[in-house]
Amino acid sequence: MERIKPRTLSGFMELLPPQQQQMERMMDVLRNTYALYGFTPLDTPLMEASEVLLAKGGGDTEKQIYRFTKGDADLSLRFDLTVPLAKYVALHGNELAFPFRRYQIGKVYRGERAQRGRFREFYQADIDVIGDGTLDIINEAEIPAIIYRTFTALGLRRFQIRVNNRKILNGFYALLGLSDRGAEIMRTVDKLDKIGADKVRTLLIDDCALSAQQADEILRFISIRGSNEDVLAALSGYAGQSAVFDNGLSELRAVTGYLAAFGVPEENFAVDLTIARGLDYYTGTVYETALLDYPEIGSVCSGGRYDDLAAYYTDRHLPGVGISIGLTRLFYVLQEQGLLNPDAPTAPADVLILPMTADPAPAIALATALRSEGLRVQLYTEAKKFKAKMSYADKLGVPYVVFLGEDEVAQNLISCKDMSSGEQTALPFSQTLARIKAGLEERCSGSIILEK
Amino acid sequence: MERIKPRTLSGFMELLPPQQQQMERMMDVLRNTYALYGFTPLDTPLMEASEVLLAKGGGDTEKQIYRFTKGDADLSLRFDLTVPLAKYVALHGNELAFPFRRYQIGKVYRGERAQRGRFREFYQADIDVIGDGTLDIINEAEIPAIIYRTFTALGLRRFQIRVNNRKILNGFYALLGLSDRGAEIMRTVDKLDKIGADKVRTLLIDDCALSAQQADEILRFISIRGSNEDVLAALSGYAGQSAVFDNGLSELRAVTGYLAAFGVPEENFAVDLTIARGLDYYTGTVYETALLDYPEIGSVCSGGRYDDLAAYYTDRHLPGVGISIGLTRLFYVLQEQGLLNPDAPTAPADVLILPMTADPAPAIALATALRSEGLRVQLYTEAKKFKAKMSYADKLGVPYVVFLGEDEVAQNLISCKDMSSGEQTALPFSQTLARIKAGLEERCSGSIILEK
Repeated sequence: MERIKPRTLSGFMELLPPQQQQMERMMDVLRNTYALYGFTPLDTPLMEASEVLLAKGGGDTEKQIYRFTKGDADLSLRFDLTVPLAKYVALHGNELAFPFRRYQIGKVYRGERAQRGRFREFYQADIDVIGDGTLDIINEAEIPAIIYRTFTALGLRRFQIRVNNRKILNGFYALLGLSDRGAEIMRTVDKLDKIGADKVRTLLIDDCALSAQQADEILRFISIRGSNEDVLAALSGYAGQSAVFDNGLSELRAVTGYLAAFGVPEENFAVDLTIARGLDYYTGTVYETALLDYPEIGSVCSGGRYDDLAAYYTDRHLPGVGISIGLTRLFYVLQEQGLLNPDAPTAPADVLILPMTADPAPAIALATALRSEGLRVQLYTEAKKFKAKMSYADKLGVPYVVFLGEDEVAQNLISCKDMSSGEQTALPFSQTLARIKAGLEERCSGSIILEK
Repeated sequence: MERIKPRTLSGFMELLPPQQQQMERMMDVLRNTYALYGFTPLDTPLMEASEVLLAKGGGDTEKQIYRFTKGDADLSLRFDLTVPLAKYVALHGNELAFPFRRYQIGKVYRGERAQRGRFREFYQADIDVIGDGTLDIINEAEIPAIIYRTFTALGLRRFQIRVNNRKILNGFYALLGLSDRGAEIMRTVDKLDKIGADKVRTLLIDDCALSAQQADEILRFISIRGSNEDVLAALSGYAGQSAVFDNGLSELRAVTGYLAAFGVPEENFAVDLTIARGLDYYTGTVYETALLDYPEIGSVCSGGRYDDLAAYYTDRHLPGVGISIGLTRLFYVLQEQGLLNPDAPTAPADVLILPMTADPAPAIALATALRSEGLRVQLYTEAKKFKAKMSYADKLGVPYVVFLGEDEVAQNLISCKDMSSGEQTALPFSQTLARIKAGLEERCSGSIILEK
């Protein structure tokens, strides 16, 4: 038979079983945390009519879209979860209750140039709160709490949620007589992390046509530093001159004001006037999240407040706030940096049963009984030498191996070996079960991420 | 602004939040049950190089495949989870331990003619056990146990797992001098449910070129009925004439012999000689699962033993056994038949908090505390009338609404209304928490499916 060389497309993550177990655990943490805040899971098609998906126009990303025809249908794969959400809310709006809070963890597709750490198929994990006409500021204040609980649940401590408000920036630009160039300036300032202050200054002058003085004013403004209180106090100095600025400042005060009630420690949060987000889409509070020991990674959770989710589909006014985690990239980076807890269980089973009797029925019955107690059990019945069986258990990382020979069956005992300690016991069912359960609880107590 | 009419592609399931909650719960049951049997989760790309995905040739399904180019790449969306599994095992085989047990719940794509209840994007939920060179028969005997536990966990009782062995059929055809026409005959016999015995007889004579006597012999053979013991006894009457038949009979005896040890009740299992499965791929035990009260639905979980998973990619001999649940179609049918438990919780939150104080901080702190106890809590802070707030809670189906006014804050009490009983209590935090937790436990105790 002619054989085809098996391969996986470049830019498509395909994990081996132990890594996949870690990825699943991360997804579970996200799902559970999002659910704690009253977000409901959604699942939308990976494919949409191109006309619908590209209603807004793709801009820079249009070339990256997987677009094709099938019969007479012009189809595209989704490139984010926001456009499908906009379609969903516009289409099903009459059957939803607002504010509508949804989370979605799903794959999206972007045919980017292939390079290390860049993916063409990747998971986004998004939450959004959509209001009908209006949306209270408390929803924006709650977002840092969700980010905090999510990353804490994953095992991270050394991260910082950075928050700004685009109304403050827009208001400040207006003070400089630059209200018509706000979006352009923000896209430039957003590059600060990557290219540094000098280059941003040059771009502001050359590309945005600012005077040297205006550029310096902007750089001075965004370099305001200090505790949240310090920054808010400094910002108060600009108050009273622009309604937009004042509105933004009052929103920022609200967002920072409830942090303690939301359980977010001061050290994990900072007002940061350099955060602008490149997308014109955002209109108020904007968020980024930095891993303090890995600044080169950039933001691992970003988002913001927007005024109109679905303007391309409906005249219903749908303001909202949302954040997104680029899960595939985050997982890749954590793995590269060696931050995934190597002691987290990744075996497909808690117990491997090796039947040592001619009739496998007692081993099967034991497996059935252990499963009914919630244990993940694999029966190993291949005709191999004992050494090969143990090496199989080792390779899978199974924590407990059970041997069931004629003696054990006769005495109603179970021989069970703890594969990490090497300790082997011969105990009745209930005591074996208790020992295994206690051991598993300890093994599962660690977090997914282990900071160095 | 010019608006685009939002729509979802025909043949693509997009659920409203309450239905999505039910679907998620079904997926959780499948994941948890599969894990109990030591299957590890896999996630493979939705897209593969066409050359790789279509190595085997698509046959009837080739026209249904979503195939397109991006740059110079010829790409296809997966149409099942088996071909990607074959590629995965061929590609990563050296890093896997065999037997390799994996489950995968993922979307697949088939551009079928659109019709009610047919989907172009649908979930399959598959498990497979892959051996390296050989695979013990116990793996085949375990499959009915997994099917039984899965459907039982979903809440079904009235279902039957039907099992046959293609070696028995092939051996029997050989006795009739028809060993060269086995695959053809099986594809014809597989239509028995749909077209009836008379038409199968006609097709066997006209299309498979059997004599009337041969066709009658086959129809008589597959009409052997009775308890598992009866059928096995009747089959014994044919033993000793064909090595293939005898081998199949001994495998069937093994599969039925361990049912009790695996915890499968007799009434949920039947040896059924009419089960053939259309695919040539299967070589031994084959499985189907019928919902007894809905025979028109056909099999809801099917599969079988195969000899060579990845022959198109590798010369490594990889026999296996697997089953697949067409999850999207199953969900659709359950919904259509009104079998989804209407009392199963579908709200996005367990508790909706309505702050009634000028300062929302106490309400926020309460939400934070309840979340830390594992409750799913939504803060409702929109400026609406009380009636609108309660109707929001009703629409979402939130089981508990908490009111936090100045009085409650002053007295350190929480007013909490049970939305189904209407009962309202004013109790301290710990007692409110206990009451809510007890109520939720009761609400979640029902199964997903409720048979009529």
